[in-house]
Amino acid sequence: MNVLIVYAHPDSRSLNGALKDYAVAHLQAAGHAVQVSDLYAMEWKTTLEANETPGPDVQREQEKLLWADTVIFQFPLWWFTMPAIMKGWVDRVYSYGFGYGIGEHSDQRWGDRYGDGTLAGKRAMLMVTTGGWEPHYSARGINGPIEQLLFPIHHGILYYSGMQVLPPFLIYRTSRVDQARFADACEELGRRLDTLQAAAPIPFRRQNDGDYEIPALTLKEHIAPGATGMEIHLAEQ
Amino acid sequence: MNVLIVYAHPDSRSLNGALKDYAVAHLQAAGHAVQVSDLYAMEWKTTLEANETPGPDVQREQEKLLWADTVIFQFPLWWFTMPAIMKGWVDRVYSYGFGYGIGEHSDQRWGDRYGDGTLAGKRAMLMVTTGGWEPHYSARGINGPIEQLLFPIHHGILYYSGMQVLPPFLIYRTSRVDQARFADACEELGRRLDTLQAAAPIPFRRQNDGDYEIPALTLKEHIAPGATGMEIHLAEQ
Repeated sequence: MNVLIVYAHPDSRSLNGALKDYAVAHLQAAGHAVQVSDLYAMEWKTTLEANETPGPDVQREQEKLLWADTVIFQFPLWWFTMPAIMKGWVDRVYSYGFGYGIGEHSDQRWGDRYGDGTLAGKRAMLMVTTGGWEPHYSARGINGPIEQLLFPIHHGILYYSGMQVLPPFLIYRTSRVDQARFADACEELGRRLDTLQAAAPIPFRRQNDGDYEIPALTLKEHIAPGATGMEIHLAEQ
Repeated sequence: MNVLIVYAHPDSRSLNGALKDYAVAHLQAAGHAVQVSDLYAMEWKTTLEANETPGPDVQREQEKLLWADTVIFQFPLWWFTMPAIMKGWVDRVYSYGFGYGIGEHSDQRWGDRYGDGTLAGKRAMLMVTTGGWEPHYSARGINGPIEQLLFPIHHGILYYSGMQVLPPFLIYRTSRVDQARFADACEELGRRLDTLQAAAPIPFRRQNDGDYEIPALTLKEHIAPGATGMEIHLAEQ
């Protein structure tokens, strides 16, 4: 399997750096091919310009995505989303005709997205660290549930472009990661990496399978009747 | 009143550029003082470095925030959140001791945030444009409800630092904004700008008013019992 790790942390000696190194070594030991886009080390250009067309740096990232079977996005949660440098990777690499604007747009079909798209058939997983505690991100935690905070990335970026999205690998309270917790984290991460191909993805609803009105793109009335919010875009299990 | 507009769009001749110019003129005509941080024009440095301390560019933005009574963040919605250049403004300007890490952290109190903080007493409002249609962002729309998509910004950035957050000013389906719709949009924007001081903010719950367990920071069991998700952090009206 070909694995691309898109990695954003400014300090290679950080917990994130150590986890990234562990992931690369673990995947390679299992016989997989790994590429890493280390955005800080690459000094990735972050801002999308007016009328920008994909230059060589963007084309290289698009080629890596096409090469990959699985894409891991690794970052510390800053202000409840990805660091700016990774957002700039998305803004620029997900260009028109690659990340969006694919397929027929008409009264019958609203493009190839949300389950279809350039990256259909691939898998994606977030690896995210937080300074805050796990309960702060729980169903009744003050920050909001982590699943809802990550929904715009999971659903609006990864699934949008066609990828199946695996549940995230999360490490909370990073300031308290000592050697024992780091060893536990690596063991758990290893299990997650060993099951990238077998694990069940988040069951987002495909846009073009008949669940949505077109062009309003609202969930049809008879599906999850009366329910609202991000969660209705997950099929009942 | 002092108004700061933090503005991110790569093309000054865009709809966003025209709306920004309208807002500045309208506010100034009403006697307000206005500063604009035009992030693209400023070539804002987007990436937060390891162990970065606030340099002159960051200090200038912090001074503008302290000067302002109301802060407007204006941007096109890219991948369901702000463009990278504005995220980089947050990552760098909301530095430790300014945007977070304020106040006592103990078993009794978890810092001055979510209603308290450096920017307490100020107001904030998002001005956001989208290419997608309004129903796509409705309660059952495929993108997720706009209120939920903006929650990490409203609650996790603006309210976190102490600001009261007004409902957003939204313009959907930007490709179809002709002169008539632009005139309507300006009229509506004018009304919103005229009521910045009077409008009711989104009623987020203050962290330090007793609604939350500390240090778990989960909503106390007797409040909105059994409910989960982002919405529980809004007080019942």
